Amino acid sequence: MGQVENKSLGEATSERIITYITQNKLEVGEKLPNEFELGELLGVGRSTIREAIKILTSKNILEIKRGAGTFVSQKQGIPDDPLGLALLSDKKQLAKDLLEVRFMIEPEIASLAAVNATDEQIEEILRWCDVVEESIRKGENHMDKDIQFHTSIARASGNSVVSNLVPIIHSAITIFVDVTNSALRQETIETHREVAEAIMNRNPHAARDAMVLHLTYNRRKIAKLKTLEEQ
Amino acid sequence: MGQVENKSLGEATSERIITYITQNKLEVGEKLPNEFELGELLGVGRSTIREAIKILTSKNILEIKRGAGTFVSQKQGIPDDPLGLALLSDKKQLAKDLLEVRFMIEPEIASLAAVNATDEQIEEILRWCDVVEESIRKGENHMDKDIQFHTSIARASGNSVVSNLVPIIHSAITIFVDVTNSALRQETIETHREVAEAIMNRNPHAARDAMVLHLTYNRRKIAKLKTLEEQ
Repeated sequence: MGQVENKSLGEATSERIITYITQNKLEVGEKLPNEFELGELLGVGRSTIREAIKILTSKNILEIKRGAGTFVSQKQGIPDDPLGLALLSDKKQLAKDLLEVRFMIEPEIASLAAVNATDEQIEEILRWCDVVEESIRKGENHMDKDIQFHTSIARASGNSVVSNLVPIIHSAITIFVDVTNSALRQETIETHREVAEAIMNRNPHAARDAMVLHLTYNRRKIAKLKTLEEQ
Repeated sequence: MGQVENKSLGEATSERIITYITQNKLEVGEKLPNEFELGELLGVGRSTIREAIKILTSKNILEIKRGAGTFVSQKQGIPDDPLGLALLSDKKQLAKDLLEVRFMIEPEIASLAAVNATDEQIEEILRWCDVVEESIRKGENHMDKDIQFHTSIARASGNSVVSNLVPIIHSAITIFVDVTNSALRQETIETHREVAEAIMNRNPHAARDAMVLHLTYNRRKIAKLKTLEEQ
């Protein structure tokens, strides 16, 4: 994974645009200066700026909205298959492995969130907990909301890497694994609530335990699905 | 992270090529049929095949070697900044967070490897342990070899997701964090050896403990670096 030494002017400029974004603390969804202004700022021509923007768009770092301008992408530079899972052929094994990774990181994340969450972040977690519960009770597909709930906990952990990693793992589950969405309605509602309340009560051990319980229900479900398929 | 419904013919063909790779179990580094044969196989024209190959090359799934043909990329579809870390501005915090993630996953991985490793995989781990030790004793930069050692353990865990995740986390450390390579020579040699031998002895608890010890030395080093900078 060594870095290439011979960079084109477009590539070098794309890195300077990243530096511009981080130094000016541009947030996701914020607009960049236009091509002309960027060219002036970085002392390069418009065709170089265009090439750099094209590179950053292909990397999901920038997003061009027709007629509106160039923005920091909602995808935050996270590519579409970041863990290279498309090449793994055994999707049943993949489901098991993804859950095993959740077991490694999410109880610890819940525990960290109980210690590090701001009051605002706790409110956000409780709000997503409500949204998922309502969605489940209505019998809707709650996958995306479920991801938001777990991601809000990851953000509250104070660890910037897991904030990006958790949605990647969860999205991989929905993209690569055909998980039935109907099972575990009641268990999900109850264990989500338990995790959220433990974080609200600033109780790291209870938060960790509740997350382990939540994941254990999921692992049992996958084990049963496997048995059904093999019969 | 929803998937786009309106796919171009090139995109659709690129997905069919992935299916071809996984169904025919083409390994990393193996050669694909040429453009003409692929076109015949998938019933599309050569320009569509070219577009599809271009898409897969940009995704690090395929690799074109001039005059030799198209191959399954060594990068295994893993993009250059898979976790979207380039946008995080506080690199010192990033170093701390990356190590925290290593604490979440690597002790568990070492423990799984002690249970699941094949004899061949154990030999590979011991070999990388030797290579890193030799490299440290010679005073070389042993970063890449260090990543290989930890990746060989991840592969031996039997979890396909962590096999991809561990090199990503380690590479991120070398790409985004300016870690001094000289410290912790003796501690690295000793704790690496302890991890490798616990796995060889099929002792999951000893493997986990040795990995925790290894990471603890690293965390202390980072804490000290931080203090030095702040003085």
